Amino acid sequence: MIILCYVEGYDAQIDELYKGFFEKYIPGVDFRAWPNWGDPASFDEATDVYAYVWAPPQGLLAKYSMINAIFSIGAGIDHLTADPLLPKNVPIIRMGDESLKDGMGEYATMAALWFLRDMKNVSAWQKRGEWQHHFPKAPSQFTIGLMGYGLLGKAVAKRLKPFGFKLATWSTSEKDPEEGITHYRGSTCLKDFMANVDMIYALLPQTTETTDLINKTSLRWMKKGSYIVNAGRGNLIDLPTLVDAVKNGHIAGAMLDVFKEEPLPKGDPAWLTEGIIITPHVAAITRPDTSTKFVAETIIKLTKGEKIETMLDIRRGY
Amino acid sequence: MIILCYVEGYDAQIDELYKGFFEKYIPGVDFRAWPNWGDPASFDEATDVYAYVWAPPQGLLAKYSMINAIFSIGAGIDHLTADPLLPKNVPIIRMGDESLKDGMGEYATMAALWFLRDMKNVSAWQKRGEWQHHFPKAPSQFTIGLMGYGLLGKAVAKRLKPFGFKLATWSTSEKDPEEGITHYRGSTCLKDFMANVDMIYALLPQTTETTDLINKTSLRWMKKGSYIVNAGRGNLIDLPTLVDAVKNGHIAGAMLDVFKEEPLPKGDPAWLTEGIIITPHVAAITRPDTSTKFVAETIIKLTKGEKIETMLDIRRGY
Repeated sequence: MIILCYVEGYDAQIDELYKGFFEKYIPGVDFRAWPNWGDPASFDEATDVYAYVWAPPQGLLAKYSMINAIFSIGAGIDHLTADPLLPKNVPIIRMGDESLKDGMGEYATMAALWFLRDMKNVSAWQKRGEWQHHFPKAPSQFTIGLMGYGLLGKAVAKRLKPFGFKLATWSTSEKDPEEGITHYRGSTCLKDFMANVDMIYALLPQTTETTDLINKTSLRWMKKGSYIVNAGRGNLIDLPTLVDAVKNGHIAGAMLDVFKEEPLPKGDPAWLTEGIIITPHVAAITRPDTSTKFVAETIIKLTKGEKIETMLDIRRGY
Repeated sequence: MIILCYVEGYDAQIDELYKGFFEKYIPGVDFRAWPNWGDPASFDEATDVYAYVWAPPQGLLAKYSMINAIFSIGAGIDHLTADPLLPKNVPIIRMGDESLKDGMGEYATMAALWFLRDMKNVSAWQKRGEWQHHFPKAPSQFTIGLMGYGLLGKAVAKRLKPFGFKLATWSTSEKDPEEGITHYRGSTCLKDFMANVDMIYALLPQTTETTDLINKTSLRWMKKGSYIVNAGRGNLIDLPTLVDAVKNGHIAGAMLDVFKEEPLPKGDPAWLTEGIIITPHVAAITRPDTSTKFVAETIIKLTKGEKIETMLDIRRGY
């Protein structure tokens, strides 16, 4: 078996790390990091070939027509679907390993507790040397609305539940109802969903429907003093409008990990808006140990013809 | 049954709230908020009387010799033991309701995730408009040391465990060992404990032994770049020394909820030390609903002669 690896922006050290883990989980594997993939004509037809990539150059994957499946090193696959030459009949699989789920659960819980505990105000009081005793809300008085409720959304819900937060979810597709969680489905329910939560935790994929879903109109649907956290894709939010909403106090605070343009440009007003916390796309990072294990396990499932939960559904676009 | 309630610094509205809940959990109760306790001579010998107090004036409780037990509206009881006239043979019971446990679990998880996720640096980068991609540690690479492992410490461990944090505990008394948690006991093991954790979460009571336990010598035992969170009592920390340790970088950050003097005095250097987050004694606040329920249930246990886990052990001093 051959693994063709391409990781934008990383170095030889990371490639070595991946190599070690792939050799651990797939004994005898032939791991090849770009630019050492080899001539496409040199591949033996009998050998299984898989791509393990993040943001490869457009057209690169098309040259290697022997690839059996393409794994994205991350939950997003827009870095692949943006390639007009992307092979059409090759399965594309999003990362679904434990480290991504764990990371999302950590980031969501950190954001939820930070905002629940009124830490935006506490920080402002600290700067002024003010001791303001106050009664933070209890989690049972704080509804978190998960926008997107796939593998990662479920992992987030699992972490938030023990604290006693109220949970709601919104998604475009039908989901199995789960005890104690209010489900909203489709665009006609979006207003209801947004009006009933104290904090949005967004985990939506990048599609045409999700672009600017959080805009001037929909922000007005939210309760005064509510919060927005985006750990999905930057296309979701009309950022200048959110900055205005935080500045005028309608939105009490935001924690943003993803942006339309990354890195977020140096002069963007979001950087210095009080109440907005910016993290550099680190909410859920793919860890070499667990992601390579996920790939090894998924390849076995593929050869057995089993269902892969994170396989791209081209009709949905994610 | 009569409940005598004294809450320092609160108002009639809070008294009304307590009254409503006590009447819910103890039907027929005669709830009396200070200053309407009534003349001590007017009490009927056949009536059970309980005190439910926070920081009553010295000598007040001594005047009401008919009190069967004194409940502290909070986990601390130093506000009671500081009273030289405190009745000697009346059981004193610390608050042990769900809201305190929940609050401690929330505060601990918030602090642990904030520091795990390197948010001190992320905030500093944000102020300079810098997008610094980085790899935060995984919880499995981050050991949290719980100083104090009673009712609240166990509640904290329960919240931290699902994230995969490594846990260690330190306490003066013997504890039941729990799977996956390293226990350290007594002053001879303190150095070992402090040298092996990435973050201390302190929940210790105020006693002569705990005063200044975190000082110049013991801070040096800690690993460079570790964190300190104090949600127990302010006497634990030699604050000027901790401020120095954060400023010189040996300690990467601290989250402090309690202080030797509260409110923390306006000019204290801790207020403006980068890397120190100050919260105004709100880590775990007593909520009227759950604390009154705890009192009602504990009174039943008392009348049955059952063991009360949060009853003051005068030999230990907490």
